[in-house]
Amino acid sequence: MNRLYHVPLSPFCRKVRLTLAEKRIEVELVEERYWEQQPDFLRRNPAGKVPVLRMESRLMSESQAICEWLEEAYPSPALMPRDVDARYEVRRLCNWFDDKFHNEVTSKLLYERVNRKVQGTGYPDSKAVKFGASRIKYHLDYMAWLLDQRRWLAGDSMTLADFAAAAHLSCLDYISDVDWNRHAVVKDWYVKLKSRPSFRTLLADQVPGFTQPGHYADLDF
Amino acid sequence: MNRLYHVPLSPFCRKVRLTLAEKRIEVELVEERYWEQQPDFLRRNPAGKVPVLRMESRLMSESQAICEWLEEAYPSPALMPRDVDARYEVRRLCNWFDDKFHNEVTSKLLYERVNRKVQGTGYPDSKAVKFGASRIKYHLDYMAWLLDQRRWLAGDSMTLADFAAAAHLSCLDYISDVDWNRHAVVKDWYVKLKSRPSFRTLLADQVPGFTQPGHYADLDF
Repeated sequence: MNRLYHVPLSPFCRKVRLTLAEKRIEVELVEERYWEQQPDFLRRNPAGKVPVLRMESRLMSESQAICEWLEEAYPSPALMPRDVDARYEVRRLCNWFDDKFHNEVTSKLLYERVNRKVQGTGYPDSKAVKFGASRIKYHLDYMAWLLDQRRWLAGDSMTLADFAAAAHLSCLDYISDVDWNRHAVVKDWYVKLKSRPSFRTLLADQVPGFTQPGHYADLDF
Repeated sequence: MNRLYHVPLSPFCRKVRLTLAEKRIEVELVEERYWEQQPDFLRRNPAGKVPVLRMESRLMSESQAICEWLEEAYPSPALMPRDVDARYEVRRLCNWFDDKFHNEVTSKLLYERVNRKVQGTGYPDSKAVKFGASRIKYHLDYMAWLLDQRRWLAGDSMTLADFAAAAHLSCLDYISDVDWNRHAVVKDWYVKLKSRPSFRTLLADQVPGFTQPGHYADLDF
């Protein structure tokens, strides 16, 4: 059986979970308290991070490398366009969310509010939270600007870039940190993604100590 | 004329410079003081980072997305293997260096010692420098372990993974922060890369206020 070592509110794990589900690859989800750095886990991934995907005898880490592998090994349905310039745009946006959005928003809101409590590393830094809450607006504006010109974030088809973005936003939505009323076009885009069968597993996540807000799993929020 | 907006001691810019040179694509190098966030530069890249590559009418950012684009648009010489599993390993290692090595080593040594002075953001944090100096040993050991089993970092051919690693190490070598005597196999790998014509532009770099050490450009160091 394929296995994904993950934590529920990790955007990188969620990107991989969405990709696996879209490609109809079944995996057993195993929660991994990666911050405890158990020797068994470090053997599976010397970088000490989740996600780690076990597919037959392969052990894979690094979410973007995993998603690119899944796209090449299981090409249907395609989550990358064929055109070289369009593929660049998908990768640029994956990196935008996994690097810039992650550093400015996810790490400042989710990691401060949730990970600190779960991992027992103290109280949220209110300056960081304030910074994240201000930066997410800029990113939502950027998404609205893209979606005014395109059906999906990277172009006219749904790609890994949409999953990268939705993975971060869905984690933040779990702690009610996304203002969906800021841009109708961004909300519409999220409704389309949230309604896909691949999203169901994410909407069922429960994190002890953090109750799922009512709107989180609601398709008509 | 193609143009690369860069700074000399940026590992991300160096990875792109090596890829361009291996593919014999000529570019004009333009130094960009990205930390000043000039409006003209932000128009070229809203993420406000280097490298930014202008190829005809295209403006591209995010070093890994650029390198993958270059590989797809200019397939020869190949810097990625054809096999799906081997391609995964290249991407995993690119991310290892650009994320883990970058966070643990490059940002702690190079950014503290050089970028702070150049950008006028104060003195090096000695705790960070100490941490980086200790972590680089672990990474050199990991590279030696890989190179004991393989001719190049990701397998038996030279790939983007070698350039990602060499880009970081060459920046650190400019400030004499790499102990090449730790593992003969790592030094041999670096000698092979350093001797390539594509490396010449990196070895000619000069950063005001930081004199190039004697061994830096020496092929027989």
